[in-house]
Amino acid sequence: MDNRYKQIIPAPNRVGTQTLVFNNRPSVASMAAIAGDLEGEGTFGDHYDMVLTDDLWGEETWEKAESKMFEEVVRKALAKDNLDEKWVECLIGGDLLNQIIAANFAARQLGLPFLGVYGACSTMAESLLVGSVLISGGFMSCVACAASSHFSTAERQYRSPLEMGTQRTPTAQRTVTGAGCTILVGPGSGSSKGIEITHGTVGKVVDLGITDANNMGAAMAPAATDSICAHLADTGRTVDDYDLIVTGDLGALGSELTRELCLKKGVDLKDKYLDCGDSIFTKEQDMKAGGSGCGCSAVVLNSYLLKEMMSSKYNRILFLATGALLSVDSTQQGESIPCVAHGVVFERRMG
Amino acid sequence: MDNRYKQIIPAPNRVGTQTLVFNNRPSVASMAAIAGDLEGEGTFGDHYDMVLTDDLWGEETWEKAESKMFEEVVRKALAKDNLDEKWVECLIGGDLLNQIIAANFAARQLGLPFLGVYGACSTMAESLLVGSVLISGGFMSCVACAASSHFSTAERQYRSPLEMGTQRTPTAQRTVTGAGCTILVGPGSGSSKGIEITHGTVGKVVDLGITDANNMGAAMAPAATDSICAHLADTGRTVDDYDLIVTGDLGALGSELTRELCLKKGVDLKDKYLDCGDSIFTKEQDMKAGGSGCGCSAVVLNSYLLKEMMSSKYNRILFLATGALLSVDSTQQGESIPCVAHGVVFERRMG
Repeated sequence: MDNRYKQIIPAPNRVGTQTLVFNNRPSVASMAAIAGDLEGEGTFGDHYDMVLTDDLWGEETWEKAESKMFEEVVRKALAKDNLDEKWVECLIGGDLLNQIIAANFAARQLGLPFLGVYGACSTMAESLLVGSVLISGGFMSCVACAASSHFSTAERQYRSPLEMGTQRTPTAQRTVTGAGCTILVGPGSGSSKGIEITHGTVGKVVDLGITDANNMGAAMAPAATDSICAHLADTGRTVDDYDLIVTGDLGALGSELTRELCLKKGVDLKDKYLDCGDSIFTKEQDMKAGGSGCGCSAVVLNSYLLKEMMSSKYNRILFLATGALLSVDSTQQGESIPCVAHGVVFERRMG
Repeated sequence: MDNRYKQIIPAPNRVGTQTLVFNNRPSVASMAAIAGDLEGEGTFGDHYDMVLTDDLWGEETWEKAESKMFEEVVRKALAKDNLDEKWVECLIGGDLLNQIIAANFAARQLGLPFLGVYGACSTMAESLLVGSVLISGGFMSCVACAASSHFSTAERQYRSPLEMGTQRTPTAQRTVTGAGCTILVGPGSGSSKGIEITHGTVGKVVDLGITDANNMGAAMAPAATDSICAHLADTGRTVDDYDLIVTGDLGALGSELTRELCLKKGVDLKDKYLDCGDSIFTKEQDMKAGGSGCGCSAVVLNSYLLKEMMSSKYNRILFLATGALLSVDSTQQGESIPCVAHGVVFERRMG
């Protein structure tokens, strides 16, 4: 068996067990974020490219409105850098709806080659990972990575009809209405804004047996911890090597739990840790445990975080998004909640 | 604008508008297919690694049985080449269930880094595409690409409760109960069986306005045609350069339509064309327009097709799988059916 193992030649652009190294670095050409009205009143409200005043956005259904957000956020990201759609060689993305229809229908409207991905709320990080691999491997020179979620579509698909006005538990998070898109280009492109992706860490599916679909933060914290620790071990780095370690949508409880679980593994996140779900709404908005959904990390990354990198506030960020890989059926069939966290490292190019 | 375009440097491992070139070629180390009982009585019955006698396979629900198929087909593929799970650096795959729970729960059981993809019935080809990019780009040395579907889970999710015994229309196809897995390794690996993946073509989402969810073949034919013609144009090849051009699950009507649409674009598929959905069941089984589902192309590829390549019957195959990117909600909201077809080229290494 050992002999056989030696016949598998280790991949050159890889360290440790889960981390890819992008020696040929993809870089950010542009990004955009569209958010709902409550999100617009939240912490990062001033940073979004557009805030909706009506969550139907002139469409007949919330699902169609979500797909329109997905489509328009890609168009907005391209327009900001005067990039034409035809230069995008692949759209990579997904959302929380059954069969990722928000992404599918947006891809139809955009007429681009399309790879649909599903990682629940980890989708923004997963699409950046796949996009970075396509660019770094020399297969594409310009890709669009995107994700969306919508409070009203997620609520009625995963929980209860909105008309019921169900009261939420203190551990519950509110699905963010929003869509974010990052345009990545290959090395040497004149469109580069000097922010590169240097590493990607592919998450393992972790399930510690949590079954409460109203406490996703607790379910996702072990996956976040697993990927943060794997990333640091793979790269031989410490928390101090980062200006910020960002998770997607663990919320108030999940992010506190992640801090504790990391500490137990000897990793002190110190003052370097930010959870998008815990931060996206203000305390005054009283959103219980915070925000969730693919759109949560997608809008925070593609507005506040990348802008602060461009203005040199942050030079190196580990961006991880966590997803709860359940469905209504799996919950009804008594299954616990398997979770995953994918990560990419953004770094400002020096000099 | 032209000036800006010139600043995006064309990717080296790419031809035309949609096709990736794997100069550093991934190759097949192993494959496996598990199929349901009716599939076992079908055309390729002798080629499957395992045929279920009970579509619950000892589980409480069909969804759990589908996830078990997904998990076991990966284990079987690995066992056939004496590969240990820990050597697999990433599992890539998906299925038709809401939030791809068959794949998610299998990934949890296998404990592997996992990238979930969703391309409806194009999922087997999409996972091979992403897996090939990871290997060819030097990011991984061993990946598992898999997809599954199950008649009983798909029927109750997409159509009607099985207990209703709904009569099917002549254009309807039967979702295949089955799962398939291909293990890909990097160049130089001792596990290589001499079958390499040389190209990948990423499909565009095409929608000609078909709204009948019982006539998926007609909906998917334009996407299949689009990707076949794009692949040939990108590579400068003709139908004669292939021993076989395979589509996933267009069925009797969809494959006939694809033949006609290709001919209109000047591409005569001649006697080189095989559709897995049209071929998987025998005429005597009277399955209306044929088989469908992610599992259809997954089991045919990972049994009959790859075996025939290993025995030198075929030297070069273009394997395309088509997906209908609809959901129950999109249909209920009056949307037509957007479709996509992704393709990869398998080639026997000579000499």
